[in-house]
Amino acid sequence: MSEKSIKIGVVGGTGYTGVELLRLLVTHPNAKLTAITSRSEAGMPVADMFPNLRGWTDLKFVEPSAAALDKCDLVFFATPNGIAMKDTPALVKAGVRVIDIAADFRFKDVKLWESWYKMTHASPEIVEEAVYGLPEVNRAKIANARVVANPGCYPTSVQLGFLPLIEAGAVDTEHLIADAKSGVSGAGRKAEVHTLLAEASDNFKAYGVPGHRHLPEITQGLTQMAGKPVKLIFTPHLTPMIRGIHATLYARLTKEVDLQALYEKRYADETFVDVMPAGAHPDTRSVRGVNLCRIAVHRPHRESCTDMVVILSVIDNLVKGAAGQAVQNMNIMFGLPEATGLNQVALLP
Amino acid sequence: MSEKSIKIGVVGGTGYTGVELLRLLVTHPNAKLTAITSRSEAGMPVADMFPNLRGWTDLKFVEPSAAALDKCDLVFFATPNGIAMKDTPALVKAGVRVIDIAADFRFKDVKLWESWYKMTHASPEIVEEAVYGLPEVNRAKIANARVVANPGCYPTSVQLGFLPLIEAGAVDTEHLIADAKSGVSGAGRKAEVHTLLAEASDNFKAYGVPGHRHLPEITQGLTQMAGKPVKLIFTPHLTPMIRGIHATLYARLTKEVDLQALYEKRYADETFVDVMPAGAHPDTRSVRGVNLCRIAVHRPHRESCTDMVVILSVIDNLVKGAAGQAVQNMNIMFGLPEATGLNQVALLP
Amino acid sequence: MSEKSIKIGVVGGTGYTGVELLRLLVTHPNAKLTAITSRSEAGMPVADMFPNLRGWTDLKFVEPSAAALDKCDLVFFATPNGIAMKDTPALVKAGVRVIDIAADFRFKDVKLWESWYKMTHASPEIVEEAVYGLPEVNRAKIANARVVANPGCYPTSVQLGFLPLIEAGAVDTEHLIADAKSGVSGAGRKAEVHTLLAEASDNFKAYGVPGHRHLPEITQGLTQMAGKPVKLIFTPHLTPMIRGIHATLYARLTKEVDLQALYEKRYADETFVDVMPAGAHPDTRSVRGVNLCRIAVHRPHRESCTDMVVILSVIDNLVKGAAGQAVQNMNIMFGLPEATGLNQVALLP
Amino acid sequence: MSEKSIKIGVVGGTGYTGVELLRLLVTHPNAKLTAITSRSEAGMPVADMFPNLRGWTDLKFVEPSAAALDKCDLVFFATPNGIAMKDTPALVKAGVRVIDIAADFRFKDVKLWESWYKMTHASPEIVEEAVYGLPEVNRAKIANARVVANPGCYPTSVQLGFLPLIEAGAVDTEHLIADAKSGVSGAGRKAEVHTLLAEASDNFKAYGVPGHRHLPEITQGLTQMAGKPVKLIFTPHLTPMIRGIHATLYARLTKEVDLQALYEKRYADETFVDVMPAGAHPDTRSVRGVNLCRIAVHRPHRESCTDMVVILSVIDNLVKGAAGQAVQNMNIMFGLPEATGLNQVALLP
Repeated sequence: MSEKSIKIGVVGGTGYTGVELLRLLVTHPNAKLTAITSRSEAGMPVADMFPNLRGWTDLKFVEPSAAALDKCDLVFFATPNGIAMKDTPALVKAGVRVIDIAADFRFKDVKLWESWYKMTHASPEIVEEAVYGLPEVNRAKIANARVVANPGCYPTSVQLGFLPLIEAGAVDTEHLIADAKSGVSGAGRKAEVHTLLAEASDNFKAYGVPGHRHLPEITQGLTQMAGKPVKLIFTPHLTPMIRGIHATLYARLTKEVDLQALYEKRYADETFVDVMPAGAHPDTRSVRGVNLCRIAVHRPHRESCTDMVVILSVIDNLVKGAAGQAVQNMNIMFGLPEATGLNQVALLP
Repeated sequence: MSEKSIKIGVVGGTGYTGVELLRLLVTHPNAKLTAITSRSEAGMPVADMFPNLRGWTDLKFVEPSAAALDKCDLVFFATPNGIAMKDTPALVKAGVRVIDIAADFRFKDVKLWESWYKMTHASPEIVEEAVYGLPEVNRAKIANARVVANPGCYPTSVQLGFLPLIEAGAVDTEHLIADAKSGVSGAGRKAEVHTLLAEASDNFKAYGVPGHRHLPEITQGLTQMAGKPVKLIFTPHLTPMIRGIHATLYARLTKEVDLQALYEKRYADETFVDVMPAGAHPDTRSVRGVNLCRIAVHRPHRESCTDMVVILSVIDNLVKGAAGQAVQNMNIMFGLPEATGLNQVALLP
Repeated sequence: MSEKSIKIGVVGGTGYTGVELLRLLVTHPNAKLTAITSRSEAGMPVADMFPNLRGWTDLKFVEPSAAALDKCDLVFFATPNGIAMKDTPALVKAGVRVIDIAADFRFKDVKLWESWYKMTHASPEIVEEAVYGLPEVNRAKIANARVVANPGCYPTSVQLGFLPLIEAGAVDTEHLIADAKSGVSGAGRKAEVHTLLAEASDNFKAYGVPGHRHLPEITQGLTQMAGKPVKLIFTPHLTPMIRGIHATLYARLTKEVDLQALYEKRYADETFVDVMPAGAHPDTRSVRGVNLCRIAVHRPHRESCTDMVVILSVIDNLVKGAAGQAVQNMNIMFGLPEATGLNQVALLP
Repeated sequence: MSEKSIKIGVVGGTGYTGVELLRLLVTHPNAKLTAITSRSEAGMPVADMFPNLRGWTDLKFVEPSAAALDKCDLVFFATPNGIAMKDTPALVKAGVRVIDIAADFRFKDVKLWESWYKMTHASPEIVEEAVYGLPEVNRAKIANARVVANPGCYPTSVQLGFLPLIEAGAVDTEHLIADAKSGVSGAGRKAEVHTLLAEASDNFKAYGVPGHRHLPEITQGLTQMAGKPVKLIFTPHLTPMIRGIHATLYARLTKEVDLQALYEKRYADETFVDVMPAGAHPDTRSVRGVNLCRIAVHRPHRESCTDMVVILSVIDNLVKGAAGQAVQNMNIMFGLPEATGLNQVALLP
């Protein structure tokens, strides 16, 4: 794979997932950005909207129709939900591979998807072939996929946190709990009142307790791991920071296992999952800006509550939870070393 | 009770609990502040340390020995742990009533206290008579108490959140979970690296998962409510905001109850507990600066997880979680209307 | 003036100025809130939008036409610019007094106003009689005013900061500089991208350097104080906090004066201006939630730069910079002690 | 220069400057980290203190005496002030080049330094030969220097902002004003009360108005540029964010110049200074994590204030204001392309 040889189009580059994807692609040695589309901002230099990209790209946003996406090797969708499902069939037909960072191809059950996303799905046949892009589970399939459904941010942190326990059959899968906290960038770059600094700063709240779209996505993944239906309580919270997800996971052990060894072994070959030493408390800033999930395993108050395990799992929602994982998937799909272009050090403080 | 007639001494007024107590007392119609002690800051006007008090008090910090605390009607300890236990016996003997906002008298089990607080207790006899100052549980005893142990911040939010469920015998008390998030002021006004803005801002982390001093305090309270030992997993987290605690509580129902009605009925007469409408998500800022616990009750994903209940409980850690509850206890002890001096509106935004 | 006797209507209570006004009015002993209007939210209980008001008011937003505002003693406009100018004439005719917290009546020069606010003014005759509501300058006129133009937030902090120097004729009024920093609530409760937490947090920027609407308002006030035209450079900045304005003011002295004495004397009788001791650095949080301007006067590096003075002036933009000053004006207009209902202590930390 | 061939020692790697330097050096293609010293933390793996470095370095902190610094090609001092001045003479004698990120060698006037830093200088002879490491001014001297005094954070932003104006002789250098705002990491990773999140968050304040150590450093630099003594008012402020400095600079023009052209021309060949388009307002986050100074030039209210210019200059205080500039200096000293290892994209949002 020679330098700058993968021709890449990005559909919808004006949101946080988009700018983060561009941040990673402009320094990726094999990525050749050819077009970034935006209906609303066509004509504007990308660097005018995102000044961190000044000097890194001269591209302007273009109308989708003018982007010649069918000449790309790979198209990323960094769009709202419901766009990729319309455009992907023609791209696939043209031989273009697709990574959708939105949710269009994440659920295998189209009816379930339609009930949560309040749309009729435009391409159920793509759903069928799409590969859920969690490399730690589906690496081989991703390598050959024409269409990859990039996982959601909460689902990435929760699934990677529960994975070893569930694969080992070590917990009661009827009473899993995921208490998750997200930075505000998870809500996207949309003008809304509840994510204004004056609303969301110096404040903490749960939201979507009765139901959140990421619940069925997580449940689908855990069910696949368990080989049987699982039941999960998922409580998302909004925390006053820009980036980061901290998932605190609770499960009841059904048999004795060496938890630390279990996790270390399962993730021994994974570049982008870091199992912390026993007793650690990973903080979200330790993964700020990098494609990494840090996990710590706890068995608290063992004397009094003999059967509970607590897992702490942190990611940067925009990187391992979105754009970084998308680049990781791209690397896998194009036969590159998986860490290509993902060698940043987290920004701390 | 005439105006400004309760003579009050405050021991240790240089921390956040101290300044918050002063904020409430300087506008309290019945409180006559007579002395504020600080060994380290003796001689400094209180308003020089806390400019929000400029114009509200001319008091200076004085040495404890110069404070004539034995002439007070009531002494608040807003000190580090281990001070009140030394000074309280003499005050009680002098007829002074005491509210300790620190932890010295919170545990009935002195041995347990000593193991968590790493000190030998100086006055076990006071422990025996001290009343745990959670008015919603112990109002009558508080009224007559000579010594009140003001509850911790986490314990207030968690106990008020679980109270109706446990009193009703409606949940499995062997597997309670309290996932709690606190603003940084909960760590106090101590110079420490991990609570610097550059460390704690734009970051989220759990801490003390293997064990936290508030766990046995909560367990003691829940056990008393349940009439039998309870088991609790308690996971505290640090969230990048100044004030506020959000406790997300999980329990398995053991019988069907009308949760909303249960909570509304239990707290119908409580001025400082607000049960939100069904489906609500209280935010911590809605209680910023006020003596109030807001609670919402959820039964999420009922179709899939039939037996789990989620309780959201928020307080301002410095008010209902510390100084405000202390003033509430003072009002009860001195026969005042319970809301005297506590009629602020939360500061929002 | 008996209890709860001033019948008050609030037009446009859904923004930050509105909720802050309500926070102050619900505990004001003489204010009887009779109507709060909102076209968009008619029918919604005010406390559903602003949970800090739960328990403090049962009012619902109503259509303006249903509000019977002409039966009020006083109507506050907490609306966007351009509303009060339309509704005020009829109210004045009906004998209702008006305080506009927006900008409609602040400029005496209607043409200038129209050029900055991009609207044709609907009631120039009201402009003529309206009194600029800066009590420290116009108290007597405010007492008798039918219409008060409540000052802007930046203009309050900058004018109070420069006032003593300019009245004393002590500075070069051709080269005044106001470098001002505001919290994000100053931008209002509007859904906009640039004030999202993910945009404005952990960030600092200037804006409006080429020109800002508050510049001519400040210049008008300073010109009146000076008795001659003044020239001012005004640089507003957005700082990542909710509330607060910090104005750093620079001027060249044209004669020697005892600066500290000058300021202390000028504001000796002002309840809501606090001149700090020499050498002090007021922080914005020291006035969080209260109707107060804190000022410190500096003469730095006197040996090297003999003629420069630096003034630090802080307010809470929503209180002394908006709703609190409006209540102060109401108190003056209705003959109440000026501090009625404004006796809060700043929330610190 | 082959890969990893510069043997590097870091003295004092436990502060923010230290960790930032390590972040940059671990991915620098020519830097071979051989030792990181810390008296207090000797034996601790660096990655245990700074989890963002987990997986990037196995180094442990060592005692200075065990570090074999005299075998290095280059030693960075990321220490408190007063260390480098003691250790540098021996290193220089051993043929080791030195970059001091602290202040020991910044002032040419040793007496002045001693009066501001309250220490007797241990090596005035090093002061004499040390080169002030602002590459945009002193590039050639830096290339040959044995000892480089890395500039302070405020001084970098202020000097780069004023430089073209002063070199062009276009402004009154008797009345320069620098109103500067810094994130809290500028205060370092020291346990202090005033930089706690609960103190510094949601707050804004000036500090050091009567005098700040960076004032004489800036004045020395501007004086050198001007060829005559300059007078400057310097007002630093603390703003509630982690990283970033925003300097707002004011000067009176003494002749007409095309400001935009002046700046663009002066910095045309500078990789790490970005002159923004006319009318722009650079935000600090646009340089978060990168070695870049962004500058915008304004001539506001030209009609009313004919002679004032306003310069906006932003940097990341830990990068272009400290560790990044140090690496830039290293690159120059060792004949590397100046941007080696400094090709990050700013993290936004």
